[in-house]
Amino acid sequence: MSEEEGRLTRRSFTPAMRSAYDLVTGWMRAAGMVIHEDCIGNLVGTYTANRSAARTLIIGSHLDTVRDAGIFDGILGVMIGLAVVERLHQAKRRLPFAIEVVGFIDQEGLRFGSSFLGSRVLAGSFDPAALLLRDDQGVSVADAVREFGGHPDLIVQEARRAQTLLGYLEVHIEQGSQLERMNLPVGVANTIAGISRATLTFMGVTGHAGTMTMDQRHDALCGASEFVGAVEAYAREIPGLVATVGELCVAPGARNVVPGTATLSLDLRHQDDQARLSALAHLHWRAGAIASERGLSLRWDEAQVQAGTTMAPELRNRLATAIGAAGHTPVEFPSGACHDASVMSGITDSAVLFVRCKGGISHNPAESVTLEDVAAAIEVVERFINELAG
Amino acid sequence: MSEEEGRLTRRSFTPAMRSAYDLVTGWMRAAGMVIHEDCIGNLVGTYTANRSAARTLIIGSHLDTVRDAGIFDGILGVMIGLAVVERLHQAKRRLPFAIEVVGFIDQEGLRFGSSFLGSRVLAGSFDPAALLLRDDQGVSVADAVREFGGHPDLIVQEARRAQTLLGYLEVHIEQGSQLERMNLPVGVANTIAGISRATLTFMGVTGHAGTMTMDQRHDALCGASEFVGAVEAYAREIPGLVATVGELCVAPGARNVVPGTATLSLDLRHQDDQARLSALAHLHWRAGAIASERGLSLRWDEAQVQAGTTMAPELRNRLATAIGAAGHTPVEFPSGACHDASVMSGITDSAVLFVRCKGGISHNPAESVTLEDVAAAIEVVERFINELAG
Repeated sequence: MSEEEGRLTRRSFTPAMRSAYDLVTGWMRAAGMVIHEDCIGNLVGTYTANRSAARTLIIGSHLDTVRDAGIFDGILGVMIGLAVVERLHQAKRRLPFAIEVVGFIDQEGLRFGSSFLGSRVLAGSFDPAALLLRDDQGVSVADAVREFGGHPDLIVQEARRAQTLLGYLEVHIEQGSQLERMNLPVGVANTIAGISRATLTFMGVTGHAGTMTMDQRHDALCGASEFVGAVEAYAREIPGLVATVGELCVAPGARNVVPGTATLSLDLRHQDDQARLSALAHLHWRAGAIASERGLSLRWDEAQVQAGTTMAPELRNRLATAIGAAGHTPVEFPSGACHDASVMSGITDSAVLFVRCKGGISHNPAESVTLEDVAAAIEVVERFINELAG
Repeated sequence: MSEEEGRLTRRSFTPAMRSAYDLVTGWMRAAGMVIHEDCIGNLVGTYTANRSAARTLIIGSHLDTVRDAGIFDGILGVMIGLAVVERLHQAKRRLPFAIEVVGFIDQEGLRFGSSFLGSRVLAGSFDPAALLLRDDQGVSVADAVREFGGHPDLIVQEARRAQTLLGYLEVHIEQGSQLERMNLPVGVANTIAGISRATLTFMGVTGHAGTMTMDQRHDALCGASEFVGAVEAYAREIPGLVATVGELCVAPGARNVVPGTATLSLDLRHQDDQARLSALAHLHWRAGAIASERGLSLRWDEAQVQAGTTMAPELRNRLATAIGAAGHTPVEFPSGACHDASVMSGITDSAVLFVRCKGGISHNPAESVTLEDVAAAIEVVERFINELAG
């Protein structure tokens, strides 16, 4: 269920996403769940409680992907929630709380350059300005939501009330290699790194590649390249910092024209918010210095995507107990990747259970988990739920 | 006559090019010329001689543009040829030689990454392998030629016989600021720089921007950026060398993914072929060293676009005489920009007359010439022709 032949790219609100929803909806129904799509378009399957006025445990992750993605990032968390409910349904068991399995419509944000559109709606931290973002075809989030069957005008009413929730659990591939090194199938996140992002545009003067001498040039790409080097060198110096320039576009973009504009993305992550913000300030200063030395102008647009978050101690303890009961050593470590759990922790106790993935490789078709590790994760979530119900 | 709203981009064999041809064809007819389009699709207007078996003077330049181009690069040379013929026609004068005004279909090569498709056909140096090049939509040169009305299979027969030609004259904006500094309207090229080009692809490993630590990375864009810096630093050291990275593309190209591939163009020019080839070899070595230090792989595809050429002394002398007769100081200097005259010099005596352009700015919508300087260029070409006829 991809937008691209031969590789997995499933952006939010697309026909490929609709196909995925159709499939998951069928499985949810078969597992005894009631289905609805909320105002932003999240897919919600509810396995009702054995009594009224019960609270709700949300088990969720996202159904959108990066470009040329692996098949486990996000999807695995929805599937494990589904598997656990399926077993309850087969055993004809209802619990004293409802379980909602949620497939978030937009976490990777590939289509709109957005962040966590889905979980922010539930957590009540959705910024209506995000409705104005546009994709590369000029379609706005608002129109995409509407076309997908949602109701952009009602989104603010979709925020959950904290007292109705028991908590949020997300199962996710680790996207790192700590579990592999420790030879463990699963582990628990204690903190999740915060993310800052910036979009930089260096602007110089275009010119003819043959007649504009080197000393006449104000080459935007040369400035951008110097900045990419500065980002890499700085991140190598600061422990715990990861910094990525993942996009870089040159205009006008012809072999025989000196670049007039270079636009690039900066993604900064650190477990410590202060370290991240100080890195952002340093690199902003560096970008300005590079531009000024080269006679370029600089546009810098920054946004904090997500602050660093600490996962709920009680849920982490319960996960550790469940992991031990399943016969594995419980471990905790920080997550460099950001998850919907960061956003959901703004409204309810939240936790992340990691599943070992091969070589730590993710955002890549080579993403891989073993059947045994997935089985271990399902067992841990089952034990976790049973203990909650007990 | 552009493919893009609000800016000038006219690639070869496009509907925008067809509109330009329709307009120029009308003007050529009105100036007493016989029109034909040759097998590759060059637009040729012939103003016949006053006797049979006469030789031909070609006055030409190109009608394709770079992206977001100025309105004089290439076009001005065709228009000045047209203006000179128009005056002959108004005076009902025929000369002892024919004049062909040629609009070359492809010099900038934006659409196919090609070089001089038009003039190479006339000069007999067309490489049939160029017919296999494809544009970004997958259309081949052969198909584009056919759709435009040409005959790709007959191209080799289109080469002119040297003994039928009197010479080739190209009028072109200078694309540099030497005439401006000397306060002169026109000048003559003595040599034209040779061009080497290469396409480089650095290949590393994609990864998650949050979980792949800095020391685990083999970031293709970091390697490419280091190379861009090395190109700039090297070109600043070698007198007369200009080196440009005008294109750079990153894949997969997402803010939260460590780049796996970075592809870039390299354009090297020098008046001295040996200096250019030695720069090419040095930068090839540097690219390999950067890739190897970073655990990246490198693909390097290079091509000599055009060797450096010396313009025909006799025609240069005739231009100098005409410039002096028109009341300006004749000057000669090397051209950093490459022109169809480089290619045409392979089959006949060739010369370039430069017209002063504002600030030396070209390949840019700010390209600008004055009416007075264009009038001076027309007068010089008229005097040049009259002297040839005399």
